[in-house]
Amino acid sequence: MDMEARVHSEHPEALRLWLRLLTCTQLVEKEVRSRLREQFDTTLPRFDLMAQLERAPDGLKMNELSRRMMVTGGNVTGITDQLVAEGLVERMDVEGDRRAYRVRLTARGRRQFAEMAQEHEQWIVDAFSGLAERDIATLHRLLGKVKAHAQQGQAESV
Amino acid sequence: MDMEARVHSEHPEALRLWLRLLTCTQLVEKEVRSRLREQFDTTLPRFDLMAQLERAPDGLKMNELSRRMMVTGGNVTGITDQLVAEGLVERMDVEGDRRAYRVRLTARGRRQFAEMAQEHEQWIVDAFSGLAERDIATLHRLLGKVKAHAQQGQAESV
Repeated sequence: MDMEARVHSEHPEALRLWLRLLTCTQLVEKEVRSRLREQFDTTLPRFDLMAQLERAPDGLKMNELSRRMMVTGGNVTGITDQLVAEGLVERMDVEGDRRAYRVRLTARGRRQFAEMAQEHEQWIVDAFSGLAERDIATLHRLLGKVKAHAQQGQAESV
Repeated sequence: MDMEARVHSEHPEALRLWLRLLTCTQLVEKEVRSRLREQFDTTLPRFDLMAQLERAPDGLKMNELSRRMMVTGGNVTGITDQLVAEGLVERMDVEGDRRAYRVRLTARGRRQFAEMAQEHEQWIVDAFSGLAERDIATLHRLLGKVKAHAQQGQAESV
């Protein structure tokens, strides 16, 4: 059963494109979630949180960390607590603000993330291996237009 | 702050494409969620559930309905109960199986969905209006390759 086949509308091209975009994202995400679970016994929100910290060597305040997460639906505070308990993340005081703190990866967290990131990269390369290099570049460019248009629209509506 | 700018890897093209695909999907989905809330005081899982029923005039069993949902994370049974209470969906007995039932849109549910679907289509047309017709066709074709490759991979791993 193919959802896309069942669309009927006056402007089917844009709707079909949207359903296909959603389907592709979900298929790749499902693959990543299942491999993270099988190979590293972890979840996508945990991986995402560690990825954001890996890109911020000085650590992040909790609100910055929440804002940077790519995956929605994870409980950032709960995941952080878990990772701290496992010795993968540490809390640091913020100078001049007794109530705030930053979080960053520990050395062990960095090692564990590097191992997962290497595998993750290969899964993503595999996910797009049905495309020629030229196709990847074209897709990236066209999605860039979609992104720019959407960001412009959302900035205007604020 | 742009997530894509912070990727460093040996195969950056596929990773950048994946992050951009995820970002575009999230931007469009965010726009649709916010408009559904503002204009119809409803949610994306409710809209999605009604969309699946609209395409199945004979109704669907609950397991079929769950399988067809495009949006993950919604509680299909809970949403169905709500929609039944609001007179938008009705339960029908399944002949020969006393414990099973099908659900379908009521006449009122069909009218309400048609109104939302018309607006929804315009939001999607607007979301992709940064692209020329030719670009939409190219994007649809290239994402078709990604989808076919992903579905093939997941079928093999079953």
